[in-house]
Amino acid sequence: MSIATIVGFIGAMGLFLGAIATATDDYAIFISASSFIMVGGGTLAATFISYEPRYVIMSFKVMAKIFGAPAIGRGVLKNEVGRIIRWAYTVQKNGIPALETEAKKSIRGDKFLRFGVDLVISGYTGEEVRECLNNAIETSYGRNTILVDIIKKMGAAAPAFGMIGTLVGLIIMLGSMGGDPSTLGAGLAVALCTTLYGVIFSQIIFLPSANKIMQREQIIRFRNYLVAEGLVLLADKKSPRFIQDRMNSFLDPAIHFDIDKAKK
Amino acid sequence: MSIATIVGFIGAMGLFLGAIATATDDYAIFISASSFIMVGGGTLAATFISYEPRYVIMSFKVMAKIFGAPAIGRGVLKNEVGRIIRWAYTVQKNGIPALETEAKKSIRGDKFLRFGVDLVISGYTGEEVRECLNNAIETSYGRNTILVDIIKKMGAAAPAFGMIGTLVGLIIMLGSMGGDPSTLGAGLAVALCTTLYGVIFSQIIFLPSANKIMQREQIIRFRNYLVAEGLVLLADKKSPRFIQDRMNSFLDPAIHFDIDKAKK
Amino acid sequence: MSIATIVGFIGAMGLFLGAIATATDDYAIFISASSFIMVGGGTLAATFISYEPRYVIMSFKVMAKIFGAPAIGRGVLKNEVGRIIRWAYTVQKNGIPALETEAKKSIRGDKFLRFGVDLVISGYTGEEVRECLNNAIETSYGRNTILVDIIKKMGAAAPAFGMIGTLVGLIIMLGSMGGDPSTLGAGLAVALCTTLYGVIFSQIIFLPSANKIMQREQIIRFRNYLVAEGLVLLADKKSPRFIQDRMNSFLDPAIHFDIDKAKK
Amino acid sequence: MSIATIVGFIGAMGLFLGAIATATDDYAIFISASSFIMVGGGTLAATFISYEPRYVIMSFKVMAKIFGAPAIGRGVLKNEVGRIIRWAYTVQKNGIPALETEAKKSIRGDKFLRFGVDLVISGYTGEEVRECLNNAIETSYGRNTILVDIIKKMGAAAPAFGMIGTLVGLIIMLGSMGGDPSTLGAGLAVALCTTLYGVIFSQIIFLPSANKIMQREQIIRFRNYLVAEGLVLLADKKSPRFIQDRMNSFLDPAIHFDIDKAKK
Amino acid sequence: MSIATIVGFIGAMGLFLGAIATATDDYAIFISASSFIMVGGGTLAATFISYEPRYVIMSFKVMAKIFGAPAIGRGVLKNEVGRIIRWAYTVQKNGIPALETEAKKSIRGDKFLRFGVDLVISGYTGEEVRECLNNAIETSYGRNTILVDIIKKMGAAAPAFGMIGTLVGLIIMLGSMGGDPSTLGAGLAVALCTTLYGVIFSQIIFLPSANKIMQREQIIRFRNYLVAEGLVLLADKKSPRFIQDRMNSFLDPAIHFDIDKAKK
Repeated sequence: MSIATIVGFIGAMGLFLGAIATATDDYAIFISASSFIMVGGGTLAATFISYEPRYVIMSFKVMAKIFGAPAIGRGVLKNEVGRIIRWAYTVQKNGIPALETEAKKSIRGDKFLRFGVDLVISGYTGEEVRECLNNAIETSYGRNTILVDIIKKMGAAAPAFGMIGTLVGLIIMLGSMGGDPSTLGAGLAVALCTTLYGVIFSQIIFLPSANKIMQREQIIRFRNYLVAEGLVLLADKKSPRFIQDRMNSFLDPAIHFDIDKAKK
Repeated sequence: MSIATIVGFIGAMGLFLGAIATATDDYAIFISASSFIMVGGGTLAATFISYEPRYVIMSFKVMAKIFGAPAIGRGVLKNEVGRIIRWAYTVQKNGIPALETEAKKSIRGDKFLRFGVDLVISGYTGEEVRECLNNAIETSYGRNTILVDIIKKMGAAAPAFGMIGTLVGLIIMLGSMGGDPSTLGAGLAVALCTTLYGVIFSQIIFLPSANKIMQREQIIRFRNYLVAEGLVLLADKKSPRFIQDRMNSFLDPAIHFDIDKAKK
Repeated sequence: MSIATIVGFIGAMGLFLGAIATATDDYAIFISASSFIMVGGGTLAATFISYEPRYVIMSFKVMAKIFGAPAIGRGVLKNEVGRIIRWAYTVQKNGIPALETEAKKSIRGDKFLRFGVDLVISGYTGEEVRECLNNAIETSYGRNTILVDIIKKMGAAAPAFGMIGTLVGLIIMLGSMGGDPSTLGAGLAVALCTTLYGVIFSQIIFLPSANKIMQREQIIRFRNYLVAEGLVLLADKKSPRFIQDRMNSFLDPAIHFDIDKAKK
Repeated sequence: MSIATIVGFIGAMGLFLGAIATATDDYAIFISASSFIMVGGGTLAATFISYEPRYVIMSFKVMAKIFGAPAIGRGVLKNEVGRIIRWAYTVQKNGIPALETEAKKSIRGDKFLRFGVDLVISGYTGEEVRECLNNAIETSYGRNTILVDIIKKMGAAAPAFGMIGTLVGLIIMLGSMGGDPSTLGAGLAVALCTTLYGVIFSQIIFLPSANKIMQREQIIRFRNYLVAEGLVLLADKKSPRFIQDRMNSFLDPAIHFDIDKAKK
Repeated sequence: MSIATIVGFIGAMGLFLGAIATATDDYAIFISASSFIMVGGGTLAATFISYEPRYVIMSFKVMAKIFGAPAIGRGVLKNEVGRIIRWAYTVQKNGIPALETEAKKSIRGDKFLRFGVDLVISGYTGEEVRECLNNAIETSYGRNTILVDIIKKMGAAAPAFGMIGTLVGLIIMLGSMGGDPSTLGAGLAVALCTTLYGVIFSQIIFLPSANKIMQREQIIRFRNYLVAEGLVLLADKKSPRFIQDRMNSFLDPAIHFDIDKAKK
């Protein structure tokens, strides 16, 4: 569970509801099924015209995941370096075939790592391993950031449909006003509600979700490039110390992996 | 037929008409031929000044196609890998000339694949095949995304012409108001109608169409790069297993092609 | 003459004037010399501060050209391939010097082609020819798209000066209103006129012109890259069939050049 | 301490408060705890949904640092060239091992320099040193500019939450107006306060902070590339004069380092 | 002196003042020291928070320079080609050392050219000269375009501070209105004045200055790349005719340098 996401989400909704509660007793004015349907439904409809349905559904699934914990933390990166270096010692002693039994243990459900290790075991050169893994990283990142694009487009469509709803409300109100300015207030309040819904949907749900998913995908991509670098050097049978220096260059100096310390 | 596009389009129009129907009985206020002509005609005129007419007409044709099914689905990508690998076994056994009869069967109307196979059969090296196919992919993608640009420009012009119409309406109304605020409402309602048309044209027709065409073109480009990679390796007479690993690196691990499973 | 540009331009102006004519008899309110001077003059002044005067004048000249026919159509591209391939046969039979007499006939005023043929005749390698021609293409494209940038900036400045005029009008009107709301209407109408002028200048003149010039320049650049590719292969004395495959890879499969058909 | 930051910050706040003080005695209208909570809290909540909490906290820490002095000034760059050239003479006379004692003195807390010198001492080639150091520079720059992105997103969220607050205030006010326009003024004033807070947060705090941090990170990156260039040439055992010319090419001619002058 | 800049600037101010003068006798309403201080001071303060003070001061100095003549015109480019080709003949006859005396004459204060000639005389290869000169061009361009960025940011901050001032004015006016709509006009006029100042500062001063400086820097960069190309070929001891073809490829065909014509 991602406590920050949940706290942020509850905080934003609480602020919004609290602001209303402290300012007025007439809550009913903010509850408008037709505004909700106009903004939510319009955004959904425009999204289904814009993208193949399979991607739209996936983008909603991925939005639900931001309430879960991220896949990769900071400590993980250092451990990845350590693992590759252990494998490098194994390859140095017993050759690449020995990697097979060693690696199988720690791969578990990590499909990217399994694919990479398989390539190294197949005996490809470092350059060939790099091309395959870079392809895998970029196409996987591309597939996932399409979903981010879809969510961002929803975040742009929601205020636009809010504006459409407000224009519809304004036109109805103005057309039937009949020269009596005293009805203007209530009508305008109802019309503006749709704009409010649109901005809230966009600012509290769509745009923050898109940002969080984007950030997590970038971290995954970064981790995969780090692992790919290690596997490429492994395929080229570089020394563990060379691998350490090369992989450390990707990391914050504060968490540089150090063989000598790790051995103790 | 693309059910999502049609459902999305009907849904968006239904939401909009429903919102009007539930809120007022005076539908006439939303029907304005002059607003429609101002927004639609202005957008069209600006587009014809902006682009050569051949492209504008093609962009309308392509917009009509989003109601049809997409050319390429997810399963297709895996099948492409399988087909190239079958060809690789053929080439391994009987040499490149044998590819000619084998390939002819499955190419049908696919001009990109025919061009690629012709290059391989002509005996060009992998590097030469890659350059030609990359050219073909990028120039074809470029030709088609110009149409997307045109539709996006229409999506930006429509609200601008809506605003022009509203300004014209406002100026007329304000100029003839004569100090009587009771006529302000009706005049403003009519003037705002043009803005509403502009935003609806943009948000429900132009921008979603542009997005869907863009997405489909990107999928076609992706598929073509996948096929091109396979043909390049074929021209270089790489082993089927190497081709499998290289082409799989483009795919989601969940749909990786596996020779051993496919043989059974 | 570019009929589409002219029709588009007349159509846009006709729509605008028609919308006014059908809605009011009081045309005078839309005719405002001071609004015209504010928007047109302000845009011009800002452009002269922004760019060297030579470029500003060139950008107006280039805007006038959009009423003329485009330099390059679709058939032209196919002909370019045919011409280069004829030259390739000449070079194959009689060597590069024979190109001189052959080429001179068809170059006429085409300075890019003349420069390219001169390089090939000078005996430079394909790589040297490519570097020179790519330079020539990109710097020429760069010089011409600066003008597009200038026109786009005018399209952004016009509504801003419209807004400045409207603010000036608003401030004068509000400052002298003296609590009598009945004068508000007429004053606001005059003030909004400047905004209307700014948006129309931008949407009907500047932005569409910039788009059309940009599109034509991109087509010219595309054609030049196609010709450059052919000349590079000519300098490397490649076979006509190889040149055909390479140049065709730039074209829509529907217009691929075919030596065998062309010979008949 | 960065006097410019502090003066700028105090100046901006002073201008704002001065403008209020000279125009009205009724300061209370500008003090609104609910507006402050809406804008500040909403921005914070949206940021916590958008990014992992560790990064959000780091972005606040980094914002506090803009009141401190920048790490790198103009003179520093010239000194870096001088130091690398002294090391080059040492390497020329006594070989790379002599660098170890010489370098240790001047590295102090500079982790990037220590990492680079370690790579040179380890005997890697220039190309290997370059790859590692470029990795280190770009990943470190990437890590720090994520924080800039977060602050920029806050700068975009603040006015949006200001607008949400104003919409809430408007709807409440309009809904309860009851046809009495005399209450419109006060209610609107309170509602607009939230927009004002949002714009001020964005324009005085978030966007300027993001700009300053970005600029400082770019200067650090520039300095690191300069040092990396020197270390690469050192690893390749180039002559001090060659290193001087190459490193000087990064600098403003006015501060070019000159061995002959420095020796005196 | 750049007459276009001065005429443009005077023209823009004249238009603005003329528009006011023809429309009202009550000029006083447009003169507002507090608006001026709010916009000018706020922009300045935000800029000092955003950037190191040294850069802010430099950006003002550079803004003053747009009233001066540009450093480089069109004829200059052709002369650069001619000069390099003369040097090429010198090198061909007497070797690179002869360049020293020849070049010294025409360099004068041109630091880039002096640096380039020094590199050629030092006997570096063409590739080494190219790397150093490209570094020098790009870092110098980068240093100068940071100033353009700063001015652009000012152009974005000015209307934002105009809006802050207007909001402050609006809130004060609305808060003290007391139900009397007759005071609304004058208060709104004063409040809008700050927005007007902000837009004028941005559209007449900051954005055009940024554009002109940017354009001049791009021309300088273009000229430097042209000169660098020539010096690289000189270092590689290419023939004058080859240098001519290569350098001409950067130029508009209408001003191609021609040795044979120049000799006459």
